[in-house]
Amino acid sequence: MTASPTPIVPDGVIYLDGNSLGPPSARTQERVRQLLEEEWGRDLIASWNAHGWIDLPTRLGGMIAPLIGAGADEVIVADSVSVNLFKLGAAALRGQRPRSVVVCEAEEFPTDGYVMQGLAEFMPGVEVRAVPRAALARVLDDDVALLLVSHVHYRTGEVHDLQELTRKAHAAGAMVLADLSHSAGVIPMSLSAWGVDMATGCGYKYLNGGPGAPAFLYVARRRQRWLRSPLTGWFGHARPFAFEGDYEPAEGMARWLCGTPSVLALAGLEAGLEAYKLADVRVLRAQAMALTDLFIAEVEARCDGLVLASPREAGRRGAQVSLRHPDGYAVMQALIAAGVVGDFRAPDIIRFGFAPLYVTGEQVREAVRRLAVVLDTEAWREPRFQVRAAVT
Amino acid sequence: MTASPTPIVPDGVIYLDGNSLGPPSARTQERVRQLLEEEWGRDLIASWNAHGWIDLPTRLGGMIAPLIGAGADEVIVADSVSVNLFKLGAAALRGQRPRSVVVCEAEEFPTDGYVMQGLAEFMPGVEVRAVPRAALARVLDDDVALLLVSHVHYRTGEVHDLQELTRKAHAAGAMVLADLSHSAGVIPMSLSAWGVDMATGCGYKYLNGGPGAPAFLYVARRRQRWLRSPLTGWFGHARPFAFEGDYEPAEGMARWLCGTPSVLALAGLEAGLEAYKLADVRVLRAQAMALTDLFIAEVEARCDGLVLASPREAGRRGAQVSLRHPDGYAVMQALIAAGVVGDFRAPDIIRFGFAPLYVTGEQVREAVRRLAVVLDTEAWREPRFQVRAAVT
Repeated sequence: MTASPTPIVPDGVIYLDGNSLGPPSARTQERVRQLLEEEWGRDLIASWNAHGWIDLPTRLGGMIAPLIGAGADEVIVADSVSVNLFKLGAAALRGQRPRSVVVCEAEEFPTDGYVMQGLAEFMPGVEVRAVPRAALARVLDDDVALLLVSHVHYRTGEVHDLQELTRKAHAAGAMVLADLSHSAGVIPMSLSAWGVDMATGCGYKYLNGGPGAPAFLYVARRRQRWLRSPLTGWFGHARPFAFEGDYEPAEGMARWLCGTPSVLALAGLEAGLEAYKLADVRVLRAQAMALTDLFIAEVEARCDGLVLASPREAGRRGAQVSLRHPDGYAVMQALIAAGVVGDFRAPDIIRFGFAPLYVTGEQVREAVRRLAVVLDTEAWREPRFQVRAAVT
Repeated sequence: MTASPTPIVPDGVIYLDGNSLGPPSARTQERVRQLLEEEWGRDLIASWNAHGWIDLPTRLGGMIAPLIGAGADEVIVADSVSVNLFKLGAAALRGQRPRSVVVCEAEEFPTDGYVMQGLAEFMPGVEVRAVPRAALARVLDDDVALLLVSHVHYRTGEVHDLQELTRKAHAAGAMVLADLSHSAGVIPMSLSAWGVDMATGCGYKYLNGGPGAPAFLYVARRRQRWLRSPLTGWFGHARPFAFEGDYEPAEGMARWLCGTPSVLALAGLEAGLEAYKLADVRVLRAQAMALTDLFIAEVEARCDGLVLASPREAGRRGAQVSLRHPDGYAVMQALIAAGVVGDFRAPDIIRFGFAPLYVTGEQVREAVRRLAVVLDTEAWREPRFQVRAAVT
């Protein structure tokens, strides 16, 4: 490795959207070029062995493990968060029979609920109980097989006490499946010590793995033999290259693989993760708390017409601040035109991510100065800022 | 587009393994560099709209459609073949109740059978009937919901008459799910006209999309409203960016998307598919038949100790020739060391793919000359050729 793995944002841009898509680094460019020219392009099929492609899902799992407080043998990289939620949810529901209820949070990131709805349609008798955040622990009764919870809420940035929720779920006989998409890399956690049963999270936000980068899965060691994925593709077989007729799940985390993974996508994630070799999540967490505190203080000092939608207490907030404005969509479009990139979540949330690997305090101050100008001049009323794009 | 989309093999290598992994082209290098530098690296999250990332699965589906004789609105790119077999198989089984049997070919590519076994474990009452190739049509009775068939057999290269099998399956009231991994791009087909219900196939063989490239799915227009994927991730929602609480499948093929797809992986496949803009599959088919005929004739003229495992009649054979040798693994290793790359499939098959986009007749003659030397000198007896690699 020679190039720097620190994500790079183009000159003139203040990028507060690393919670949607992290930027590439010089190392990403180098790694992908190397893959194309020196591996795939030169050694072709032999690269599966010669360049260790076959080990990438396990190796990247080992790089993610310290970020989430897990053993290297408890994490692997595969598929997308949505596919992994299905695999893990189905496995847990089968293992927990006759319990048949999945509890999840209403208003959480939609894919979590959607996947559980699909699972319930597919597995006879399974029922999804979507309840408000505050009610999660209260509705855990004897029918509940699984509690699905996002560590950090995608709209508000509020952090769940995952340790405490896990304790309550276990006391009620339920398993816990955590979605770490908005916390991995910016919030220290101890999944193994907390006893969290299963987790998944995305590779393209704070892990900077590239748009739609592969996701990771975690399964607690004590659960690994007991849980089986319904998606029994050949990469999850105990001996994939023996081409046997009957499926036998691999020992350990490899059973959560399914089809042949994209090596291009894995190489992008590998480069993104290299930035974390040099970082300490506890330090990053302190930086993110300071950046979000500064942002809130500056907004409250300089901007009118915005309402804080995130917890005021830094400890209860991820690396993200959300603000409400009745014309949030247009405000964000005007702010992006002014060189500050955040995003919008319907109906009225403007959302800012503070990835501590590359966002600075000076950028935060400048971002708020520009936001104040957008609001003071009502720049957002320009018609061009009102037109909705396909992806917002 | 400026760079050539024709796949490039390194100097000195005769690459007869494009049926396992196609090579990159200059266009692949250019497209991926462009994605990294001018899209992801420069425009970051805005690229989903600005560079049409959001449309990639549909756009690439449209590029694949003419290769498989389908409408552009019948094909989309998503996930892996294994994941897609699960989605399509589950959807068909659910739609065909009370029929509950999946018929598939014993000895076919293992992931096809594995995925059906996983499905049967999760869907109460579903049964997998794996039968010899010749018995497929015979066992289609009133209980059969689904016939799963690979268009071209991965070991022998034998081509199924997909049109005729579809006719028989439909006559028996069963649906057809075709795996086109070894035929897409090298065998002309008319899925729509033949009435094939569903299909999937891989992007990394003849389509040259890169190692583990995303797969494609086809669903016949008449089946599209009726079939629902069990993997209900947010990208398959009718309005993914409205962040609604309830899942509603998109119209058309978009409902087969699940999680956020890897744009890096899609860009690799996009570049691979560009080579087919200039090609006619009927012409490629004629070339592949001529190349495989030539290979067999040369082998039979020059090599001892090999038994043809593929059909002798070119029309019944894909772009592939398989030969049996009791020490096949070592023979292939020795041949690779001599600069001719094919692969090995246990227990005794050496397999050669003839991707007509980049394999020439002169290469075929030279490959057989080198194979004859390996056999005549018994070079394969060297101990270094006997050591099995992790992936073979």
